[in-house]
Amino acid sequence: MSVPILQPGTGPLPGDHYLPSRPDTVLWGRLPCETDAAVLRIQPGETVTIDTVSHEGILEDQGKDPRAYFGGHGVADDDVLTDAVEIAASLSRDPAADGPHVVTGPIHVAGAEPGDLLKITVVELALRAPYGVISNRHGKGALVGELPRAEGNVSVFAPVEERDGTLCGVLPVVEGGERIVAFPLAPFLGTMGVAVAGSERPHSVPPGIHGGNIDINLMTEGASLYLPVQVAGALAYVGDPHFAQGDGEVALTALEAPLRATLRFDVVPREEARRAFGAVSGPLVRTDEYLVPTGMDPDLNVAMRACVRAAIDLIQARWGLDEHLAYAYLSAATDFDISQVVDIVCGVHARIREADFAEVDRG
Amino acid sequence: MSVPILQPGTGPLPGDHYLPSRPDTVLWGRLPCETDAAVLRIQPGETVTIDTVSHEGILEDQGKDPRAYFGGHGVADDDVLTDAVEIAASLSRDPAADGPHVVTGPIHVAGAEPGDLLKITVVELALRAPYGVISNRHGKGALVGELPRAEGNVSVFAPVEERDGTLCGVLPVVEGGERIVAFPLAPFLGTMGVAVAGSERPHSVPPGIHGGNIDINLMTEGASLYLPVQVAGALAYVGDPHFAQGDGEVALTALEAPLRATLRFDVVPREEARRAFGAVSGPLVRTDEYLVPTGMDPDLNVAMRACVRAAIDLIQARWGLDEHLAYAYLSAATDFDISQVVDIVCGVHARIREADFAEVDRG
Repeated sequence: MSVPILQPGTGPLPGDHYLPSRPDTVLWGRLPCETDAAVLRIQPGETVTIDTVSHEGILEDQGKDPRAYFGGHGVADDDVLTDAVEIAASLSRDPAADGPHVVTGPIHVAGAEPGDLLKITVVELALRAPYGVISNRHGKGALVGELPRAEGNVSVFAPVEERDGTLCGVLPVVEGGERIVAFPLAPFLGTMGVAVAGSERPHSVPPGIHGGNIDINLMTEGASLYLPVQVAGALAYVGDPHFAQGDGEVALTALEAPLRATLRFDVVPREEARRAFGAVSGPLVRTDEYLVPTGMDPDLNVAMRACVRAAIDLIQARWGLDEHLAYAYLSAATDFDISQVVDIVCGVHARIREADFAEVDRG
Repeated sequence: MSVPILQPGTGPLPGDHYLPSRPDTVLWGRLPCETDAAVLRIQPGETVTIDTVSHEGILEDQGKDPRAYFGGHGVADDDVLTDAVEIAASLSRDPAADGPHVVTGPIHVAGAEPGDLLKITVVELALRAPYGVISNRHGKGALVGELPRAEGNVSVFAPVEERDGTLCGVLPVVEGGERIVAFPLAPFLGTMGVAVAGSERPHSVPPGIHGGNIDINLMTEGASLYLPVQVAGALAYVGDPHFAQGDGEVALTALEAPLRATLRFDVVPREEARRAFGAVSGPLVRTDEYLVPTGMDPDLNVAMRACVRAAIDLIQARWGLDEHLAYAYLSAATDFDISQVVDIVCGVHARIREADFAEVDRG
């Protein structure tokens, strides 16, 4: 089970459209806003295959030269993605003002209007390379001021290897040692969002109503993300590809590594959205098993309460439960998880089992 | 699949010892301390079958008469547990000063000394009755000041019924309606702890280094809880039985309902404990799949960070990882979950997959 290198445009491109990541189709450190021109225009229901690019390996503190950086970890020149090389060479960001993420888009989805929901379904995620990076930087992560210990930032290179038929990220026990710690991959996109109104591009780090860097590790193949459309055409974008991430993302980053993502974009009109989910005021995830409302705030206590409110609202709107019964149900039956605590705005998401409501007639 | 009523002492009692809950074997609202006399003395490795009693249905705001309270929900007199009736009739607590929980113990485990770990393994949990209660009270729960809406406290009665071969708690969509919302049971004990030093009995609500009301829903059959022994003999106790609870326990309580718990108590001597887990400074859970360190604090942000520190310490001590590699591993591979946010002290627990370290020689 080897991982072929998916250079831009090579290999299977299953989507109705293909969107590469090039200096003119990405933003580095900022998210699209209303006044940004679409780099692709599609009809609702169409799929797009997007070659996403990880910021890890191209950042300033890593030398801003992926061939040199990954080469230092034994990666051959041909196995470094040319789009990452091109972006690092052509674009700049202001580390003091901008986030680290490379986001690809925006994509204009015909007919999407404010009040509708944009539904982004993860059809397929293919690894583009058999390696990634996990970073911890000063002033960031769950243990700000404690880690990293030394002066420099810490980036841990992590190749992908097969273990018992499963692709895993592998780490050594001690720096330079044999790579005998192995954790299974569960790829997803850390960032999926819609453009905000106005002419100011948001910082790429804090997630919000627009989605963005939500870092919810349930967004694997088959999952859908519903986002309240903010501007005409939605102007969707994705990036921050992850091979694996734990809830919390405690050191600062996931196993950051490039994915070829095939996504379907659908528009859920306002009235249909309201009947299905009520007044969705932030990102809503759906998996085979769960409906997953979210809460976000710089204070994790506040994010948790926001998520509880969103969960009660969803259950009331979707299944008609009395408020006190919705609250009781959540207390006994729903896990509230920490999405991440390292993106300025913390996230909490609630896994509501849809099967528990199978007998409820939604009218 | 019916649930027989397990009155005290009736039905299977598989443990080496049997400990009923009677006015002289329980505390109501307070936890045992060093000066409390043991109600049972056992050897390490022995099992005890304990009839635990739920506080829900016997509290003051529910009338402090379980026959009347549950009778009002259609439960026959014979189906109300006589130990709950006896405790409600014989004991009192000060609602302003004490917690709500009934805890059974303390159990003296021969040879346990401060510095050792007490290992409590959940061998078997049997439902004692086919019904329970989920409550929300003013000034408590995740949404303090918002819910409950009306003046009185809210207690939702939830019977247990079979759905497709699975025992479920069932709720209606609207008050008094047909019970068509059904969530699967996953029973565990909300409270498992050891006595604290000194002569002051702790309040039963906030969890701590001693364990207590940790409300970690991974503590189902097969799981073990390791607690730092605080006083000679450990003086263990359990209570707060739950049929099901979501991470967060947002409304205030789980589906609170009585369990017959068969538990094994082992002592892990100080040196062996240190080799296996490092300096365990709080509750540590172990399941078939995970090692689960915990963090606790009134502020969820602080509890999260405490859990990250505990997780790094555990990985360093157990598998010898460099600190920065442990941190990177946790970021990419470990879910940090919200145990609960409603017990004055919030809890976070981290699910570290032991299989990821299968190749590491622990020497």
